[in-house]
Amino acid sequence: MKIDPVKFTQDLIRCPSITPLDAGALDVLQSALEGLGFVCTRLPFSEEGADDVDNLYARFGGDTAPNFCFAGHTDVVPVGSKDGWQSDPFAGEIKDGILYGRGASDMKGAIAAFVAAVSDFLEGHREIKGSISFLITGDEEGPAVNGTIKMLKWLEENGEKLDYCLVGEPTNPGKIGDMAKIGRRGSLNTTLTVVGTQGHVAYPHLADNPIPRLVKMLDILQSHTLDEGTEHFQPSNLEVVTIDVGNTASNVIPAEAVAKFNIRFNNLQTDQGLQDWIRAVCDSVGGTYRLEMKASGDAFLTPPGPLSTLISDAVRKVTGETVELSTTGGTSDARFIKNHCPVSEFGLVNKTMHKVDECVSLHDLELLTKIYREILGDFFKE
Amino acid sequence: MKIDPVKFTQDLIRCPSITPLDAGALDVLQSALEGLGFVCTRLPFSEEGADDVDNLYARFGGDTAPNFCFAGHTDVVPVGSKDGWQSDPFAGEIKDGILYGRGASDMKGAIAAFVAAVSDFLEGHREIKGSISFLITGDEEGPAVNGTIKMLKWLEENGEKLDYCLVGEPTNPGKIGDMAKIGRRGSLNTTLTVVGTQGHVAYPHLADNPIPRLVKMLDILQSHTLDEGTEHFQPSNLEVVTIDVGNTASNVIPAEAVAKFNIRFNNLQTDQGLQDWIRAVCDSVGGTYRLEMKASGDAFLTPPGPLSTLISDAVRKVTGETVELSTTGGTSDARFIKNHCPVSEFGLVNKTMHKVDECVSLHDLELLTKIYREILGDFFKE
Repeated sequence: MKIDPVKFTQDLIRCPSITPLDAGALDVLQSALEGLGFVCTRLPFSEEGADDVDNLYARFGGDTAPNFCFAGHTDVVPVGSKDGWQSDPFAGEIKDGILYGRGASDMKGAIAAFVAAVSDFLEGHREIKGSISFLITGDEEGPAVNGTIKMLKWLEENGEKLDYCLVGEPTNPGKIGDMAKIGRRGSLNTTLTVVGTQGHVAYPHLADNPIPRLVKMLDILQSHTLDEGTEHFQPSNLEVVTIDVGNTASNVIPAEAVAKFNIRFNNLQTDQGLQDWIRAVCDSVGGTYRLEMKASGDAFLTPPGPLSTLISDAVRKVTGETVELSTTGGTSDARFIKNHCPVSEFGLVNKTMHKVDECVSLHDLELLTKIYREILGDFFKE
Repeated sequence: MKIDPVKFTQDLIRCPSITPLDAGALDVLQSALEGLGFVCTRLPFSEEGADDVDNLYARFGGDTAPNFCFAGHTDVVPVGSKDGWQSDPFAGEIKDGILYGRGASDMKGAIAAFVAAVSDFLEGHREIKGSISFLITGDEEGPAVNGTIKMLKWLEENGEKLDYCLVGEPTNPGKIGDMAKIGRRGSLNTTLTVVGTQGHVAYPHLADNPIPRLVKMLDILQSHTLDEGTEHFQPSNLEVVTIDVGNTASNVIPAEAVAKFNIRFNNLQTDQGLQDWIRAVCDSVGGTYRLEMKASGDAFLTPPGPLSTLISDAVRKVTGETVELSTTGGTSDARFIKNHCPVSEFGLVNKTMHKVDECVSLHDLELLTKIYREILGDFFKE
């Protein structure tokens, strides 16, 4: 059974699986994978305070190592303004060789390409030395508590071992073959509230304005060079994303001032080290303040090696391009998988991800299918 | 006809004259003044974009100089939470020797005290060498565009000259006789908007975060010593009152950041000089920004002299206290009157002004009436 990546992307897009909804997307995938001989296990998880999420682990090839895993997600971000779309974001319409729909590039198209590549590969190899698996969550765009983390725990508890993992996130800035991700920075979100005493601007000695202290703290934090980056990582970076006081009276000194900032950090930093630094800066300015800090995980790096070579070779063979091995950009579920096996990311073009009129060209879907097919052939020494 | 300051304060409070409403307050005042022989002129003003406001100029004593003017306002600030008041804020109830109501201290009580003092003074002096006038606006607590400024213009155009002016604002921090104001600082409100380019925190090189520039500008502005003050003025002071970005997404670099700050400045500074300085600081940091600056008038000072001596002598005679001649606190309409004649302020205790349960003690009303009576006697060489 040969699967068409375009038709299969359309089937997935037509399930409006906005996080945390599944909307039938995992059924579509499971049905195709069972048709190819995969053993499928649905892994629904729940936790108080978070939405219930369904997930899917599928494996072909019995228990034999090595297990080459494709990881990804069927959930998508909201459509934003529906009126802004030139066609229904869940219709999967094709116009002038472009397939439109929420999830087209992030990342239903890549799932379809990998399924299509597997179907092509298995036509000639019903017996393989090792196994192929799919680790597909419905909670990548959400809080990520009932998805990949819990699936990995389940795998461990059930003796399932991953040997290499390719995550199908859209990694290419311009065209297929531009960039693979061999690492990602960590992300730390901080809310800093400086507390003072309200009063009248005409009598500042009777008040204690929290804004000057907040401004000093932010200026120190944002002016500091955290590091110069590494061979594989750009420098760690802090961005203040908002400051909010909400004082509408021009003659009143406010009682509190709040700022939020985000640090994207490389593997020279740790979540804990950064939290200690932030606290020390605030203490150096002094006064009363509150800090809420939430890290989304430390940075990860899979240094160039067998996995990146598989990707580079396949890209070169299909497109003639030399893929850049990068660690730029946002976070992905690879930050969880890195604790289990070497992991890297390669998928579609990310120009339209999370945007109105998200789309993928039919040509790109075919190119990515070919690249994934090359990777499978190379890995299993076809 | 002798007027009772307590009863008259109640009559005024019972007119709910929340800016810009008059609610009959000027009628109450005009009726009493006409009973005393004053010639009254109502001066209603209007201007596009502002509320219509009624005002009153009243004069006793024909056209003869010197003209001793009492200036003030019958409008009051809103009551805030009505439930917070222990009695109806417009009932003028008396409890344990305290008269409660919006405007009791700011400044219907002072108007009543001056009317009572005048009625007592005139009982023995139906002919005086000079004249006594009232310059009473209904737009002091509002935008002040249809009040004192336009009345002063009308006076000039009609050949009415003021020689000395006493403003009845509540100037005493603790008790009657503590403090008179012989000057006030100016006030400059600024809204600073720094403009950048929105983007994703993971790709800061594709965005331009306006917050670091805003923080730098504010840190320079708030750290600068404008001056050390003068013999009569405390140092000029800048307070940042709010910073607002309103960005709810922790992974987004915002496009704009807005701060508002207020400068209270003495007569070493000018509105224009401060505006030039603010612009130079913003330029030194650079980037795109917008400034909106609105001054409420320059600082004013009536150096110690005949007018302050009148007040000091009267206070000493009635209370035995030495009144402090101060320039602290907010702005008042004296900032407009200073261009026409020497002006100073002396009134009730300001502890409860603009607050819930605003009040005045009957004892204070009597003390202030006696002080105003002494001033009149002294001025007209009784």
